[in-house]
Amino acid sequence: MTSKPLHASQTLFPVADGCLQVGGIALPRLAQRVGSTPFYAYDRALLSARVAHVRRHLPQEIALHYSMKANPMPALVQHMAGLVDGIDVASGGELKVALDTGTDPSRISFAGPGKRGAELLQAVAAGACVHAESERELRALAQIRQETGIAPRLVLRINPDFELKGSGMRMGGGAKQFGIDAEDAPRVLGLAAELGLEVLGFHIFSGSQSLKAEAIIQAQAQTLELARRLAAASADPVRILNLGGGFGIPYFPGEQALDLAPIGAALAAALPQVREALPQARLSIELGRYLVGEAGVYVARVIERKVSRGQVFLVTDGGLHHHLAASGNFGQVIRKNYPVAIGNRMDQPAGTPVSVVGPLCTPLDLLADQMALPDAEAGDLVVVFQSGAYGRSASPQDFLSHPEAVEVLV
Amino acid sequence: MTSKPLHASQTLFPVADGCLQVGGIALPRLAQRVGSTPFYAYDRALLSARVAHVRRHLPQEIALHYSMKANPMPALVQHMAGLVDGIDVASGGELKVALDTGTDPSRISFAGPGKRGAELLQAVAAGACVHAESERELRALAQIRQETGIAPRLVLRINPDFELKGSGMRMGGGAKQFGIDAEDAPRVLGLAAELGLEVLGFHIFSGSQSLKAEAIIQAQAQTLELARRLAAASADPVRILNLGGGFGIPYFPGEQALDLAPIGAALAAALPQVREALPQARLSIELGRYLVGEAGVYVARVIERKVSRGQVFLVTDGGLHHHLAASGNFGQVIRKNYPVAIGNRMDQPAGTPVSVVGPLCTPLDLLADQMALPDAEAGDLVVVFQSGAYGRSASPQDFLSHPEAVEVLV
Repeated sequence: MTSKPLHASQTLFPVADGCLQVGGIALPRLAQRVGSTPFYAYDRALLSARVAHVRRHLPQEIALHYSMKANPMPALVQHMAGLVDGIDVASGGELKVALDTGTDPSRISFAGPGKRGAELLQAVAAGACVHAESERELRALAQIRQETGIAPRLVLRINPDFELKGSGMRMGGGAKQFGIDAEDAPRVLGLAAELGLEVLGFHIFSGSQSLKAEAIIQAQAQTLELARRLAAASADPVRILNLGGGFGIPYFPGEQALDLAPIGAALAAALPQVREALPQARLSIELGRYLVGEAGVYVARVIERKVSRGQVFLVTDGGLHHHLAASGNFGQVIRKNYPVAIGNRMDQPAGTPVSVVGPLCTPLDLLADQMALPDAEAGDLVVVFQSGAYGRSASPQDFLSHPEAVEVLV
Repeated sequence: MTSKPLHASQTLFPVADGCLQVGGIALPRLAQRVGSTPFYAYDRALLSARVAHVRRHLPQEIALHYSMKANPMPALVQHMAGLVDGIDVASGGELKVALDTGTDPSRISFAGPGKRGAELLQAVAAGACVHAESERELRALAQIRQETGIAPRLVLRINPDFELKGSGMRMGGGAKQFGIDAEDAPRVLGLAAELGLEVLGFHIFSGSQSLKAEAIIQAQAQTLELARRLAAASADPVRILNLGGGFGIPYFPGEQALDLAPIGAALAAALPQVREALPQARLSIELGRYLVGEAGVYVARVIERKVSRGQVFLVTDGGLHHHLAASGNFGQVIRKNYPVAIGNRMDQPAGTPVSVVGPLCTPLDLLADQMALPDAEAGDLVVVFQSGAYGRSASPQDFLSHPEAVEVLV
């Protein structure tokens, strides 16, 4: 058993009197304050600390954007807006939330395949950057310009000719629905010029959820190299260069936190050359999961402790319908446990291994499979860590018509 | 290529003038009537025909229940309520919808692990059958009886000591959060008597989504045998016996429709013995997916046809956020394509293989991977068949804040 890989230890949230503290509030009291379980709680101080951590490691001149698809809760986006240099949105719906924060629209960028005409118009009218993913979007923007007289703020999203190695999600390299193939970019740049559209720069996203600094360093070097090639093909100077994201967080046993120091050092070393090649470019990195994922917990209450054929189940009021990713049904090939704890028994030793399940009539509704947790009973609070990103919004809330999970920022 | 397994042919929805007809309406006109894409459309006539099909094959005295967790759209549940003998619900939220249809509450049954106190009270107050899954629920019901003076309609859900073989979802056999272990039932029956609770009968659910008649026949025989053993241990005569469901529908290449004839014949042959052993029992089968799954389609509009490195993508306005199961992220280990068509080009031959993707910024947003479909372009309507069950309600609607999918019953 000692050789079994373990979850990275969860030390961000302090413990006092055996209770996890979220936003400085003991979990049982926070549950009372929320008024119902299950809920998601996001910790403001941890969000701020994480942004500061990234800034400490990355060169100062690299702008930091929050990719709000990771967590679109309006209060959280508002908090992040006060900390970062821009917000990346993935739909007209997200654009509305980002604009409501008061963020300078020119620091809001809208990427995503298949943008509808109404969404493109929204973005142009707002003055947000549109990251065009295809020739069609360029033509639609030219049309909007003609109809409205507003010059779109246009960035080309590029499907690079490499990928972020070992990433959880490959989003570049090969044939993809995302962006304009790098080798096709010169032709599309020509088309933009023909359509009278100024191209402000490029967005090069090669992957996400990587825990390997070397892989990120390599992808960033390739990204900068590709940007230099693209700049050479562009009639307009590069003013915006979005290097993508890709910073992962540890979810599963054996995974370790990403070390930002070498990434920051490599970027700093590369900057003088970039400055020379792209003197007018504002460089940015977009992070979603990395900024918010570790600052959030999902909390469900144990309804009953049940034994079936010798196996112990903690049946809770929360489950897959609120937290699809923790159930293992969101892009995972092999189901693994998220880090889980009993939030009001943090000082107690592990007892009998238990499976934490939800109230749904399906065996998929599994939050923890045979985990060694302190012995819990009805009323106790199960905590799923690493739940600040791709949690509530990425889950089928309506499934089986149970109450929705409340979200709080504390 | 000829040896590759194919999807079962989709012949339920007629085709006229190259267009799929849903509810007797040509798809482009239906899209106009709905007013927006994407949408789910469920065909009333097909729902009715499917219920009639089941009734034709099963012995008349077996009641047919609709398990509404498969599709909780209120108008559809209302339609089903007029066709079936009862409705099975999985939450207090579903109970509300079932009651609103005017169904006799005694024909509504509520199963599911971890029922909250408020839900149990709702069900008792309504006069619905509560399928107790644990000793805790028995005690809670006794308490409610004491506080309200209302006698609960109590059925014990049993975790059988066997499972439905080859089923998509094993819900019985082994250690489970569902029901009372069969071998523990005598003790729990004793407890019910002690608490002064009458036990109306048993609910024995061994699995779902099976396409093998033999496996279902075997599970039903085991279920009836188990019911006889349970009856012998019960102080009360068995009035209700829910045999579960388990009837599957073909989703993926190579799968064939389930043949009900042998299942009906086996049940008919078993009935005389059951009548003798359980003379007062109302037998029922609960079906969700089997009744509604094939009667529904998901329809999304092509935003653009895009070529990346030689591969063709149809980027649509619909995707994973509306139809998680079709994207392969709902309990599937290996992603396979649902049957997909271009609903306004039904008479055209297959062209270049394409991947149908949605508007989300994730490679998981894939509705069809490299399928041979008629050459489609912007404005065309992509149809995902077999989408009447576990579609909209089982999907993360809020993911990336795109518009919701409308649902219509036509």
